[in-house]
Amino acid sequence: MSIGRQFFSWLLFFFPVLVQAQPADSLQIRKIVNEILVNGQAYQNLRDICRIGPRLSGSPQAEKAIELTRRMLQQAGADKVWLQPCLVTHWERGAGETAYLVDSAGTKFTLRISTLGNSMGTDGKDVCGELLYINRFDQVDAMGEKMLRDKIVFFDLPMNPTHIRTFQAYGESGIARRNGPSLAAKYGARAVLVRSLASNVDAYPHTGATRYNDSFPKIPAMALSTQDAEWIAENMAKGKKFTACLRNRAVMKGEVLSYNVIGEIKGSVYPEEIISIGGHLDSWDLGEGAHDDGAGCVQSIEALRALHNLGIRPKRTIRAVMFMNEENGGGGARAYLDSAIAKGEKHVFAIESDAGGFSPRGFSFDLGDQAYGQVKKWAPLFAEYGIHEWERGGSGADIGPLKKIGTALCGLRPDSQRYFDVHHAETDVFSAVSKRELDLGAAAMTALIWLVSEYGLTL
Amino acid sequence: MSIGRQFFSWLLFFFPVLVQAQPADSLQIRKIVNEILVNGQAYQNLRDICRIGPRLSGSPQAEKAIELTRRMLQQAGADKVWLQPCLVTHWERGAGETAYLVDSAGTKFTLRISTLGNSMGTDGKDVCGELLYINRFDQVDAMGEKMLRDKIVFFDLPMNPTHIRTFQAYGESGIARRNGPSLAAKYGARAVLVRSLASNVDAYPHTGATRYNDSFPKIPAMALSTQDAEWIAENMAKGKKFTACLRNRAVMKGEVLSYNVIGEIKGSVYPEEIISIGGHLDSWDLGEGAHDDGAGCVQSIEALRALHNLGIRPKRTIRAVMFMNEENGGGGARAYLDSAIAKGEKHVFAIESDAGGFSPRGFSFDLGDQAYGQVKKWAPLFAEYGIHEWERGGSGADIGPLKKIGTALCGLRPDSQRYFDVHHAETDVFSAVSKRELDLGAAAMTALIWLVSEYGLTL
Repeated sequence: MSIGRQFFSWLLFFFPVLVQAQPADSLQIRKIVNEILVNGQAYQNLRDICRIGPRLSGSPQAEKAIELTRRMLQQAGADKVWLQPCLVTHWERGAGETAYLVDSAGTKFTLRISTLGNSMGTDGKDVCGELLYINRFDQVDAMGEKMLRDKIVFFDLPMNPTHIRTFQAYGESGIARRNGPSLAAKYGARAVLVRSLASNVDAYPHTGATRYNDSFPKIPAMALSTQDAEWIAENMAKGKKFTACLRNRAVMKGEVLSYNVIGEIKGSVYPEEIISIGGHLDSWDLGEGAHDDGAGCVQSIEALRALHNLGIRPKRTIRAVMFMNEENGGGGARAYLDSAIAKGEKHVFAIESDAGGFSPRGFSFDLGDQAYGQVKKWAPLFAEYGIHEWERGGSGADIGPLKKIGTALCGLRPDSQRYFDVHHAETDVFSAVSKRELDLGAAAMTALIWLVSEYGLTL
Repeated sequence: MSIGRQFFSWLLFFFPVLVQAQPADSLQIRKIVNEILVNGQAYQNLRDICRIGPRLSGSPQAEKAIELTRRMLQQAGADKVWLQPCLVTHWERGAGETAYLVDSAGTKFTLRISTLGNSMGTDGKDVCGELLYINRFDQVDAMGEKMLRDKIVFFDLPMNPTHIRTFQAYGESGIARRNGPSLAAKYGARAVLVRSLASNVDAYPHTGATRYNDSFPKIPAMALSTQDAEWIAENMAKGKKFTACLRNRAVMKGEVLSYNVIGEIKGSVYPEEIISIGGHLDSWDLGEGAHDDGAGCVQSIEALRALHNLGIRPKRTIRAVMFMNEENGGGGARAYLDSAIAKGEKHVFAIESDAGGFSPRGFSFDLGDQAYGQVKKWAPLFAEYGIHEWERGGSGADIGPLKKIGTALCGLRPDSQRYFDVHHAETDVFSAVSKRELDLGAAAMTALIWLVSEYGLTL
């Protein structure tokens, strides 16, 4: 540490202009980080949100979470808090979902499943068929109707463990969950089982949205726990055959009115320039939506709280946004963009935390070359907090639409190793979140938006 | 990614000598990492070690773990596996430890405590006294006998949350656990309660070794859960007074024979140059010693397994060492050094993993300037695995003694945010470990020792 400081003093001596802003910025960031580590409310807030239960769009729990986070934003010291109306997808899993296999000897094996989000239901009746095992998505077209007709298709695409960033594996293997049901339906399959998108092997199925292609029949689809998936794969590799039956009462109820929850601190110098920091308030209907994405919500609220508590009045307007309906429709994201356009708002920067409340490792930027050059210069300020990865890439599903109006976008990149152990599963609960990891993520985002607020960005 | 590769090709063109080794090393490291992420046995091995239960030195569980890891090293493909005798501290907590407070109204409050390791017992009798609250260690001498005589001293030194690396806070606040009992005894205190060294606030006490100064009476000492510590602090700040009573049957049984477990792959070119990779096999007698330090043991075994399974014959000898008695005596570390000296072995490098099985963030090096210059050049090879922190600093308690014979030392630096939530507590169990995080730590260490094995170090 002392060597670093000596070197720094030397730099100050020879290059006074070049590094002028650094020491003050560094001190201010340290204040922000300390405030969050010492007085942070994100963890308590997350506990309270999780106590509501899962918050699927259109559910009573989602409505409770809207009211709760509205109050949290007021308590955090926002100048103004409001609810922004949006139309959201209302889908319900229904009671009594089950699936089982029957082997050639008539033995029955109950499976640990979770109906995929937005999936059709079976009206509580068994939909049965011979189980067809597929572990390469690119082979489906070649197999065609001859092999898929009247089958229950089981897509077994494990996440590739060699990708260091688990999101890459999620994106690749996710094709089966997203597109598998409609592709199977194209060739006459009756229903689909998909291996859960999980990086571990356990008994918990992981749900998530599927996307039907309107050109083909909409067939029911369920996620299967990774343990069950491996058991089936092993047995079918030995030549065993199964009949599979699925039953549920899932129903798509259409669109209903809900809200994004927004709180802002008005900018002191450029109040018309808006910086958004957000996560999404809705979650899947399993677990508590702690990492996905209660974490992003409470981190965003924490950013306002920390600035307010420190008496930092940002030059630009900072808005914390709890988006609704990220998981299965994107209604909140659309409403936020539409409102920005309708009001002619100037959105200079938006950052989203929707990758879990884990130790922050860096940021992913989706913005122009000049703006990237600006933010990249701030990287050294973050190294002492273990934040080293400044890269270009995607931001978040909720802020993504703002790209249409030229907003510079950014995604918080937490350590991704544990995310897909709990993502969209019963295991995504408050106790899976570490207070320090959550706080450090909030601190990283708060420091970054404070810098943007101070210096602006050339868009 | 493509920009990086273009830049790299450009470098190759202009500086063929400078970067010559990079592409081949990078590919070899990728092979090692993939082998561990795809075929890794560390997680299963950790599960099996944890099933034995906690492994305090001299306990039957420690003996079972010796035999189990001996077999694991054989199965991993070590050329040779042996047990290295060492004398270890044998301390037992005994049954029925309790502590409680009584307020002035006679109301009794049971405390969640754990006797500190190596602490004296009370022979099953209550040791009682007025509770004295101390939250600044540097005030004890000024308070002196006048205030401490016949008291039960409660040291309430929370870990400083503003240190990003939690080990720094552990080191600072740890003075109370290490030196508090003897300092309090110096001034006539009857017993000591120490706030658990934990970065979270919960109901679990965290034990750990205390060190008696032979100049003063040895008084009993217990760790108190952070929840209880905060409750007491709040109540005493309001002026409440308590009598505290402690009771246990802890007993120091002296030294007994135990073993380090060692497996090695002989070097193909410089077999006399030894590289050690290790963790410690003993643990505290709470929980399962999963992060501390089952993780380091299975990562070290995994290094041998991965090299063996890939058919990589290292140029230098690589030894995986499960040290015994790190927690409360260091007997294994001494025996390893003594044996090295007695046999005139040449130990060129040693790395230890004893900071939990979390996502690796970097390495801490304790070696000469020239050797540090060499290893620092390898840093770019690790960036794609999220490993960015190459710094000088301590290594590990077990390999530390090798410094006397000039060995270059290194400690794996995992993400430290969650470590002190579970460290030395009932919560340090297998289920608190993430397979991917554990594997990535093993991969980082294996890649590093492979590089040292290939290129050597100038000592």
